[in-house]
Amino acid sequence: MRTIDWVDGAVEIIDQTALPGRLEVRRLGTVEELVGAIRSLAVRGAPALGVAGAFGVALAVQQHAGDDDAVRAAVRAVRSARPTAVNLARGVDRAAARLPGGFAAVLAEAVALRDEEIAASVAMATRGADLVRELCGSAPRVLTHCNTGALAAVVGGTALGVVAELHRRGTVGPVIASETRPLLQGARLTAWELSQLGVDYRVAVDSAGPFLMARGEVDVVLLGADRICANGDTINKIGTYAHALGARRAGIPFVVVAPESTVDTSTATGADVEIEDRDGAEVLAGAPAVNPAFDVTPHDLVTAIVTDRRVIRLDRGERV
Amino acid sequence: MRTIDWVDGAVEIIDQTALPGRLEVRRLGTVEELVGAIRSLAVRGAPALGVAGAFGVALAVQQHAGDDDAVRAAVRAVRSARPTAVNLARGVDRAAARLPGGFAAVLAEAVALRDEEIAASVAMATRGADLVRELCGSAPRVLTHCNTGALAAVVGGTALGVVAELHRRGTVGPVIASETRPLLQGARLTAWELSQLGVDYRVAVDSAGPFLMARGEVDVVLLGADRICANGDTINKIGTYAHALGARRAGIPFVVVAPESTVDTSTATGADVEIEDRDGAEVLAGAPAVNPAFDVTPHDLVTAIVTDRRVIRLDRGERV
Repeated sequence: MRTIDWVDGAVEIIDQTALPGRLEVRRLGTVEELVGAIRSLAVRGAPALGVAGAFGVALAVQQHAGDDDAVRAAVRAVRSARPTAVNLARGVDRAAARLPGGFAAVLAEAVALRDEEIAASVAMATRGADLVRELCGSAPRVLTHCNTGALAAVVGGTALGVVAELHRRGTVGPVIASETRPLLQGARLTAWELSQLGVDYRVAVDSAGPFLMARGEVDVVLLGADRICANGDTINKIGTYAHALGARRAGIPFVVVAPESTVDTSTATGADVEIEDRDGAEVLAGAPAVNPAFDVTPHDLVTAIVTDRRVIRLDRGERV
Repeated sequence: MRTIDWVDGAVEIIDQTALPGRLEVRRLGTVEELVGAIRSLAVRGAPALGVAGAFGVALAVQQHAGDDDAVRAAVRAVRSARPTAVNLARGVDRAAARLPGGFAAVLAEAVALRDEEIAASVAMATRGADLVRELCGSAPRVLTHCNTGALAAVVGGTALGVVAELHRRGTVGPVIASETRPLLQGARLTAWELSQLGVDYRVAVDSAGPFLMARGEVDVVLLGADRICANGDTINKIGTYAHALGARRAGIPFVVVAPESTVDTSTATGADVEIEDRDGAEVLAGAPAVNPAFDVTPHDLVTAIVTDRRVIRLDRGERV
């Protein structure tokens, strides 16, 4: 089952706001529906957003055939639906480059991107599992944050894809999934995926992670990224940085798993990335709240970055 | 209004599980009711727990007059209702030492403890506000965690008492209250107290604190303690340690405010403290969870400890 795909003239997604209560497929036939689904996080996760962006261009052409201005406006709307993950803009740009070739060319490019992300998941799982074995030996106890499984990609996943591969090899210890406030991607989505995989896991509040590491209950932190800057600074779900600080103090590896499509060498450092501030009502209804959706983990706290093409050992001085 | 008091033969508490929806006073006429209120966090906060423990001994004598075995069993039940905050056991022990003098002597000791905690709140507020002024100048932007206000003490509070004093002096910047999962003492109780005080505040998810510090939005972290060990290791609500790591990396002061009754020189280090593991259902119903209620912040991450009697500058090598 794919988190996102093009089926009979529309984008179909697994609605991630309905999980874990209901596994519900939603059909998105217009750009407006797709943008709404992206903003509400019905579809989320950097690789899935890249595919959503590319399919969004196909939707725009289909919806506004013959009206170039309307197509361009619709493409811009998809591209700016969320600012932080580089994949969304990249997916849009890649499909939009085929606009002169018409709908068929655009859709073919989007489908190619989808297939590349599927292949990337497999490659990351293998490379990541090999690296974790090298760093931690067998049966490491993993802590992960947010959701980086099949739901965040098309199939497989990034960091959670590595956990799934370790599980297939029979070499994963118990997993801690941090709940990921405010929208609980860990408690709702990662817990559901781990349970489907049959992996032994427990959920923890986000603020417990560093203490569980200090208590010696975690061997490696594995998580994803929404953008990896030229200097290795990693933008990911809010809470990632706190976990990186905990890993450093505990002396355990902190490993980022993301496809090459998330590596953005045109952005120099984390300070150059627009961090999405979301509605405070996601945190607490009826009271003022500050709600940055992502944070910046400085590159010196990252042990290694695993992509579908390489392992970058920042701890050994390797560069992105 | 007092969070906890002895009124006409029973303990009266503000029920902290009902806030912020309802401000409700509960009468606890038996040891069983008091123990239930402690376990459910209807009464919580280290100073308030100390007073609850002392009043609990008075309840035990009143309830089991003439039956020394039953009194002793009831006293033990109160003492062990929660393990981490030293104040509860201390309050019980102090009142229980007066058992030979009968009910009146026990109650007088409990009332004396209550009055000492009230006086301690005033003294901590003054010392703490002076220290913050010295460390940060005027109008510092404060981040606080959990609830350390009047609700956690009898009146006034510990860290939030310092915020209130800074506010009275007209020298506090905007405050960030971390929500404090899983039971949301920050989002429910601290937000309510700050709003009552008229302090400008926003709530944040717990995992955002370190990033907000890194972004330069916080000048000082102020929070309480459930136990301060002989070496300065500080036991406090889960999430405290992650905030301390964030403060260190951001180069801002991390200040613990707690009465002398929380300083426990008979416990050498944080490793010697029993950390209460609470029901995983507090984190997530229907899935496995790990739920440590407290964590240990190593003394080297603490800038200063403010008590009602002194300021201990750990950053200058001073010792508890």
